[in-house]
Amino acid sequence: MTTPQSGKTPDLPPRDARTLLEPRPLSVKRGVNPHAPGSAHLIMGRTEILATITLDDKPAPHMRGKKEGWLTAEYSMLPRATTDRQARERNLQNGRRHEIQRLLGRALRAGVDLKHFRNQTIYVDCDVLVADGGTRVASILAGHAALHDFFDTLINTGKLSEWPITHNVGAISVGLIGNEVRVDLDYAEDKVARADLNVVATDTGLIIEVQGGAEEGPITHDEYTTLLTTGVTAVQGVMGQLARELAVIQGM
Amino acid sequence: MTTPQSGKTPDLPPRDARTLLEPRPLSVKRGVNPHAPGSAHLIMGRTEILATITLDDKPAPHMRGKKEGWLTAEYSMLPRATTDRQARERNLQNGRRHEIQRLLGRALRAGVDLKHFRNQTIYVDCDVLVADGGTRVASILAGHAALHDFFDTLINTGKLSEWPITHNVGAISVGLIGNEVRVDLDYAEDKVARADLNVVATDTGLIIEVQGGAEEGPITHDEYTTLLTTGVTAVQGVMGQLARELAVIQGM
Amino acid sequence: MTTPQSGKTPDLPPRDARTLLEPRPLSVKRGVNPHAPGSAHLIMGRTEILATITLDDKPAPHMRGKKEGWLTAEYSMLPRATTDRQARERNLQNGRRHEIQRLLGRALRAGVDLKHFRNQTIYVDCDVLVADGGTRVASILAGHAALHDFFDTLINTGKLSEWPITHNVGAISVGLIGNEVRVDLDYAEDKVARADLNVVATDTGLIIEVQGGAEEGPITHDEYTTLLTTGVTAVQGVMGQLARELAVIQGM
Amino acid sequence: MTTPQSGKTPDLPPRDARTLLEPRPLSVKRGVNPHAPGSAHLIMGRTEILATITLDDKPAPHMRGKKEGWLTAEYSMLPRATTDRQARERNLQNGRRHEIQRLLGRALRAGVDLKHFRNQTIYVDCDVLVADGGTRVASILAGHAALHDFFDTLINTGKLSEWPITHNVGAISVGLIGNEVRVDLDYAEDKVARADLNVVATDTGLIIEVQGGAEEGPITHDEYTTLLTTGVTAVQGVMGQLARELAVIQGM
Amino acid sequence: MTTPQSGKTPDLPPRDARTLLEPRPLSVKRGVNPHAPGSAHLIMGRTEILATITLDDKPAPHMRGKKEGWLTAEYSMLPRATTDRQARERNLQNGRRHEIQRLLGRALRAGVDLKHFRNQTIYVDCDVLVADGGTRVASILAGHAALHDFFDTLINTGKLSEWPITHNVGAISVGLIGNEVRVDLDYAEDKVARADLNVVATDTGLIIEVQGGAEEGPITHDEYTTLLTTGVTAVQGVMGQLARELAVIQGM
Amino acid sequence: MTTPQSGKTPDLPPRDARTLLEPRPLSVKRGVNPHAPGSAHLIMGRTEILATITLDDKPAPHMRGKKEGWLTAEYSMLPRATTDRQARERNLQNGRRHEIQRLLGRALRAGVDLKHFRNQTIYVDCDVLVADGGTRVASILAGHAALHDFFDTLINTGKLSEWPITHNVGAISVGLIGNEVRVDLDYAEDKVARADLNVVATDTGLIIEVQGGAEEGPITHDEYTTLLTTGVTAVQGVMGQLARELAVIQGM
Repeated sequence: MTTPQSGKTPDLPPRDARTLLEPRPLSVKRGVNPHAPGSAHLIMGRTEILATITLDDKPAPHMRGKKEGWLTAEYSMLPRATTDRQARERNLQNGRRHEIQRLLGRALRAGVDLKHFRNQTIYVDCDVLVADGGTRVASILAGHAALHDFFDTLINTGKLSEWPITHNVGAISVGLIGNEVRVDLDYAEDKVARADLNVVATDTGLIIEVQGGAEEGPITHDEYTTLLTTGVTAVQGVMGQLARELAVIQGM
Repeated sequence: MTTPQSGKTPDLPPRDARTLLEPRPLSVKRGVNPHAPGSAHLIMGRTEILATITLDDKPAPHMRGKKEGWLTAEYSMLPRATTDRQARERNLQNGRRHEIQRLLGRALRAGVDLKHFRNQTIYVDCDVLVADGGTRVASILAGHAALHDFFDTLINTGKLSEWPITHNVGAISVGLIGNEVRVDLDYAEDKVARADLNVVATDTGLIIEVQGGAEEGPITHDEYTTLLTTGVTAVQGVMGQLARELAVIQGM
Repeated sequence: MTTPQSGKTPDLPPRDARTLLEPRPLSVKRGVNPHAPGSAHLIMGRTEILATITLDDKPAPHMRGKKEGWLTAEYSMLPRATTDRQARERNLQNGRRHEIQRLLGRALRAGVDLKHFRNQTIYVDCDVLVADGGTRVASILAGHAALHDFFDTLINTGKLSEWPITHNVGAISVGLIGNEVRVDLDYAEDKVARADLNVVATDTGLIIEVQGGAEEGPITHDEYTTLLTTGVTAVQGVMGQLARELAVIQGM
Repeated sequence: MTTPQSGKTPDLPPRDARTLLEPRPLSVKRGVNPHAPGSAHLIMGRTEILATITLDDKPAPHMRGKKEGWLTAEYSMLPRATTDRQARERNLQNGRRHEIQRLLGRALRAGVDLKHFRNQTIYVDCDVLVADGGTRVASILAGHAALHDFFDTLINTGKLSEWPITHNVGAISVGLIGNEVRVDLDYAEDKVARADLNVVATDTGLIIEVQGGAEEGPITHDEYTTLLTTGVTAVQGVMGQLARELAVIQGM
Repeated sequence: MTTPQSGKTPDLPPRDARTLLEPRPLSVKRGVNPHAPGSAHLIMGRTEILATITLDDKPAPHMRGKKEGWLTAEYSMLPRATTDRQARERNLQNGRRHEIQRLLGRALRAGVDLKHFRNQTIYVDCDVLVADGGTRVASILAGHAALHDFFDTLINTGKLSEWPITHNVGAISVGLIGNEVRVDLDYAEDKVARADLNVVATDTGLIIEVQGGAEEGPITHDEYTTLLTTGVTAVQGVMGQLARELAVIQGM
Repeated sequence: MTTPQSGKTPDLPPRDARTLLEPRPLSVKRGVNPHAPGSAHLIMGRTEILATITLDDKPAPHMRGKKEGWLTAEYSMLPRATTDRQARERNLQNGRRHEIQRLLGRALRAGVDLKHFRNQTIYVDCDVLVADGGTRVASILAGHAALHDFFDTLINTGKLSEWPITHNVGAISVGLIGNEVRVDLDYAEDKVARADLNVVATDTGLIIEVQGGAEEGPITHDEYTTLLTTGVTAVQGVMGQLARELAVIQGM
């Protein structure tokens, strides 16, 4: 691996119970919101996400008269999800929030056949209760789990006859700290990484989207493809774990 | 009791496991947010609140140079806390939200000696994860529990030498359904109540604030004082329950 | 009366021409806006309110298809209604404003039979020209007078056959300064009161809503009920005065 | 007078008690707001304006360190000042409002020597209680009267030693209805005018600003100068009337 | 000419290649936006405007059911059009922007017969790429040129059978620097002018609107009419230049 | 190449004068804004960007007291840059805009040594005059060119002694249409692509960031790396072209 920057590894406490390529412990609970037709509460390390599904019987403006419905995602943090409190108004107008919720929408749409939801709109609300790095990939996982909860109910109640998930979509972050590749960075690791990718992929190793790169200075082509390959593999591992957590749900 | 309206009781399912004057089951967990110096997760029936504390080392604008600090509360609902989804932007600009968070602020300030927080501001964020009636009283209880968690830590770490809570402040809703007085209404009960009070009081039976009354038509003076007395008593019961839940904390 | 706080009365100038239980001088003029179908200009001490009625031939969103119309109130202050100038933008987004206009709406709806206004919305705009304490109760009185002006015209022009006011609704503030109960506090009194209630009631002594309590520390149950009883009585006095001012209007 | 459009006069009721070149009856009352250091309530026909003065001890951002202070004006309508109700939020963001308040600021600044208010900002708030045409010229007159009230008090209390008004500034609207020139149009006249100028001038016939022209199609140079001359003369008449109304004030 | 202020001419560099009554060099290019049905890029001295036309097949709200369509103009500056950078959000909420775009709308509507655009709305977007004084008159000229480009295409493609421009509308600024009258002020001249008019007129010398006057102190009636006459003449000169630039377009 | 979707190529007109791997014709002009210390006007096919530099002598809030300055980018479209007109207010609040301007900021910061701009903030404003696909990569190229113009001037005027660009940063889009890889998609191509990456890289083949992926369904790992490699190569080609256009500038 050729590095254009001498990659001295910053001083970081060693990872307690996991190796560099292992994600943080993951737990998911479905059906946590009695009002929503689908929901999931996901904990990944200290990061904690609540995802809920709403089915709106109105098409999105740009999907009127089309053969498919639409799925849109929203992402927000509670004011004290972070180490400093963020004002609610600022949270809503934040550019970072817009960037993330557009990523969530693309990621989750890629795995669902929206022909089953013609003239309807599925909302996936991902709210960060606690943030400790990786909130966007945890939100994709939580959103995917909530969609499973939702579709499972639709199938069981006979409202849908065909399982609408075409790809089990997950995500993970991978980063370069010094010259070490690490999977699923927490906030302390993320702050010192010189490159960091959010890889959105399927449990079969196909790629949906890759977001990210380097803030400090460019990385080599080799470094990029190593991060990518590590990420794609790690997503497959995480999706296995998610499937075990949601074992009773069809199709996982 | 003289009723100006013939009080036919609306058809409501009987209360399952509780009497008319009994609140819903209550559970509280403190210390749920690793970033906040105080926090509490409270469940009351199906209503679910997350309260977190932030201590800001700046005085509120109107308390600059004063001898006391300030405590301010914010209240918000997640978009799908309710049976229909509410847009985030509308949630923030909502008149009901402003009314409630002003009530929370007054209620929580009434129990704290703010001389200990001169030139500082305590934020109490109450976020409704699930709403099923009584969110404002549940927020007062959750906020009070989070303040206990916060002050307990300050005392234990030696940052504060004196317990700053002067009154244990709680709240409960009481309503008139037909001619029946009911305590701690859920959403289905609240919708058919012809009068409904939110009573903010102490565990010793003193009154902080009473908010509410009748939408459908006036009630008699007697009806009002019956509701009030029932509410004050019910707050004392709820505060006993809260104290048992948070037993290890000083002063409860 | 048992007081938990030693109630030393703060230094206040004696009330000039009125006793502690007497409201300030009240004058009302109806029909002051040539464009509005109902309006009233009310002066209470130095507090001055302009209330205007608008009848909109569209139902409120949540009343579509219902058997009744809706009445909504808005409250705002001119920038220099207060001793310091408030920016217009801040005035509009203000939490206090939202809290008050929700109270006005509930208070005024409680006295009107909205079956006569099916699929319509009545707006009551209460604008504070000068504020010297008690603006929310003065707004309820001004709004009620403007509604009388409006309904009187509807009856006289044959657009309505039945007087739609079911209760004459008024309001007054009562406060505890030291251990003294005072009625209709001006701004200087309000600032030093240790408890203060806004009592919304009818001219027959029925209760619509009571808002308020103590900021400084709790009050006793006895203190609360004394304030309440004093307030209910004072509303009846004020409503008599209002009826004399608007003598020519039916039903007052 | 050469008219490019055949000027058939639209059907309008004859002016009751005034000639075509006469303004509507004008009355002014000063000192109407007990909190503001200067204020005026002006009625011109059915148009009604409340103007209040605030002196802020901060310089406007662009006047920091300059030798002069600043005077800024705000203009707003109450929701039901007009025949239809306007929402408060729309009133604030309205382009017409911005256009008018910039005109008011320029008009009122032109008559005041701001060297006396170095590092200070004078706010002139003009709120339209009732609108029946001519609100911008009535606001200039009301603002000018409120400034007189303010400066008179400053002189009388010894806070200012020199009368700061350098020009008595007034305004009037003049319009072309068919081929008739009319002074001080009410709303019904304004709607059918094919040209309409707001002339801001002094009581000695000097010009501050002229705003306006034709919406329906161009007018001739002769028509324009006739309107202008009529307007300048009419302002002098109106200023005489204003001076009589405010007779006790120095300098008018 | 009687001047109320001793008009000492401020120190300004002499005008390079033009006399006091000559406008700056003008160039226009039509058809610069491939998506818009009409557009023009206009350079006047260093001031640079991009104007584009959009035809919306919806009537403006207040023109529903009327016999004519509507034309509306928007004006905005790029953040660095000026010597200091202006934030985008501030640019949009700016009072000056609202004042200008209302002027543009009135000016451009005055020259177009909107009967040809019933139930439609023409948008004219004028964006300032570089500002060096006179942006509002340059925007009127650019907007007029873009309308010519638009109508020319409509005629050539047979979508319109009659040339809809009834008046060729232009504009120029004229100012008083000391006692000198100058035409088409740049920013440096504008800053020291004691009076300044934006004259909107036709190529035949008819007047649409005149905006402006004096900030520093009143001017005489004679000064005003001299500025006006100079402006009307200068507009005719500029319109000849514009016609030569757009020679191939019908009707100029 | 294994494709999970049968990649039938959609009907598209053949590329006129360029091969599938060739970018559109590129031209750049520097120094186009007389007020800004650096600027560039870039045309790439029909896409047209105006980039301007502002140097603000205030540090960004999060860079106070740090050893480096900050560079921030803003991106916006004129209302009629696109085939349909977009309202200005919507343009500003748009999530897509936020996503893009965050990408621009990261891309441009990666090539500049900000130690030379301690306690300062560089603004790069990229305004889209015409959009025909690829506006975000064209904005990175235009921003980079404007930064060269800016730094060149700083060096030539002696305000900076060392060339601050550490990497020449460019960008290009690459897409998969059916099974064909195409470079620098225009809008018509972009609409039918089943995957599309924006590759931000240096003229030496190092990678800054890669954004994008598939909306329609996942792509294979091989497809992704082919797109990436093609993109990195294409950026090097485009940067050669940009260097020739800006030949006189140091360091390109």
